[in-house]
Amino acid sequence: MNPQNFMATSKIKIQNSKINYTLHLADNALILGHRNSEWCGHGPVLEQDIAITNISLDLIGQARNFYQYAAELTNEAKASSPQGEEVGGEVTEDTLAYLRDARDFKNCLLVEQPNGDWAVTILRQFLFSVYQYLLYQRLQTSNDAQLAAIAEKALKEVTYHIRWSSEWVIRLGDGTEESHKKILKAIDDLWMFTGELFKPALYETEAVEDGFGVDVANLKDGWMQKVKNVFGEATLPVPENVWMQSGGKEGMHTEYLGYILADMQFLQRAYPDCEW
Amino acid sequence: MNPQNFMATSKIKIQNSKINYTLHLADNALILGHRNSEWCGHGPVLEQDIAITNISLDLIGQARNFYQYAAELTNEAKASSPQGEEVGGEVTEDTLAYLRDARDFKNCLLVEQPNGDWAVTILRQFLFSVYQYLLYQRLQTSNDAQLAAIAEKALKEVTYHIRWSSEWVIRLGDGTEESHKKILKAIDDLWMFTGELFKPALYETEAVEDGFGVDVANLKDGWMQKVKNVFGEATLPVPENVWMQSGGKEGMHTEYLGYILADMQFLQRAYPDCEW
Repeated sequence: MNPQNFMATSKIKIQNSKINYTLHLADNALILGHRNSEWCGHGPVLEQDIAITNISLDLIGQARNFYQYAAELTNEAKASSPQGEEVGGEVTEDTLAYLRDARDFKNCLLVEQPNGDWAVTILRQFLFSVYQYLLYQRLQTSNDAQLAAIAEKALKEVTYHIRWSSEWVIRLGDGTEESHKKILKAIDDLWMFTGELFKPALYETEAVEDGFGVDVANLKDGWMQKVKNVFGEATLPVPENVWMQSGGKEGMHTEYLGYILADMQFLQRAYPDCEW
Repeated sequence: MNPQNFMATSKIKIQNSKINYTLHLADNALILGHRNSEWCGHGPVLEQDIAITNISLDLIGQARNFYQYAAELTNEAKASSPQGEEVGGEVTEDTLAYLRDARDFKNCLLVEQPNGDWAVTILRQFLFSVYQYLLYQRLQTSNDAQLAAIAEKALKEVTYHIRWSSEWVIRLGDGTEESHKKILKAIDDLWMFTGELFKPALYETEAVEDGFGVDVANLKDGWMQKVKNVFGEATLPVPENVWMQSGGKEGMHTEYLGYILADMQFLQRAYPDCEW
């Protein structure tokens, strides 16, 4: 391999891991945003209905920023591809959100879990927001200016998501006997999906090597500390020795993602390119 | 009837028409907000999905303000009722939104019409927003400080709703042959529900007499002018001599409202007072 080819190959590797990494960040935000949006207009309390829908919109907004950047990277990679002309049209935020299959989605399993009752929705948001905060905080110093800027912009939103969801975790945990029982059950349902957050996928490892990504294994202690504090105040136990599920980041999803995509992608697939 | 009794009766009349008037304003906003929220997370375009959901949230926010005031008026009326203690607990924004039957909803028929395709959703928003703008503009000078304040706060939002929806009406009307056809069909579906906007219900007539409400008949010319301007730019005809439906303001609804309420009120009715 001559040096020029090596450079080219190396550039493609960086591009691909960066595309995958960016899609992973986008998919996490989109899928959780879509899950939360299922509450929109379904009460039971107008005030909280509005709050959870606002969080939805924040997350879908973050997803758009990441998808736009992933689309830009993908179109650049296609244009400079040695195979020359590629099949298929231009990639956009919408084709990435609405036309990929479940196998191509790189979100972690936690965000695709069903809403269940209010306790499950709240706990899912809390566990993920604490992770997302620590991640974005470090992503601000990425050597990729675009990723750093998106993270910086999103941090203020995530700060609010943590405050809102942790107040609810405490209110439910330290509330009535019934609410305590429900959030205990939610911990039972969701805890097994938290391990995956801190186990890097290949593109995350490459992202760290190339200086644009965050080492998620390093986030675990900070995450656990915050969760312990809030669970303590909520009189809730932190589970130990739970067997952890994983696979979502590599496209191996629970059955739920298929249903989400069927619901979310119906319009775009039924009426392709409905540009009107 | 001695003067004191007359005063008391007259006060109750004012309270009742004010409660009904306030509920009418709230129901319009809630039902349209809920309809729009059905798009949330269902694309087909991320950007517009976010826009329509934001409009939803604005409307549900307006509804909350009106419901809170209606609840306050209702609880006052109950406390001063000559029958003494009333059956049932305190009235709140949530009981008003989630525990009334279709027959008690006072929204106009236009806002409960199904989303249909994007053209129907857009046109419904445009026709209603122009009306709502003119209404709130005048409601700012209500002799009821609370109603005036809610209207004033909401006007900025409605200004944006008009801009956004009228841009879409023009884009669809003056777009492709397909999009033009679809919005023509939407006009066909919705125009018959616009007459009701300008025909006052009893509580609206009383509201005008007592100085806290707006004479909706007077809004028609301004509304028609704005609609004509936008339809003109969109190369769309303004229908004439259409037979107009009405009844929604008095609780006589199309079949659709029942389905909306079934969907919206399910949680609150299945788990009454789920305060946890």
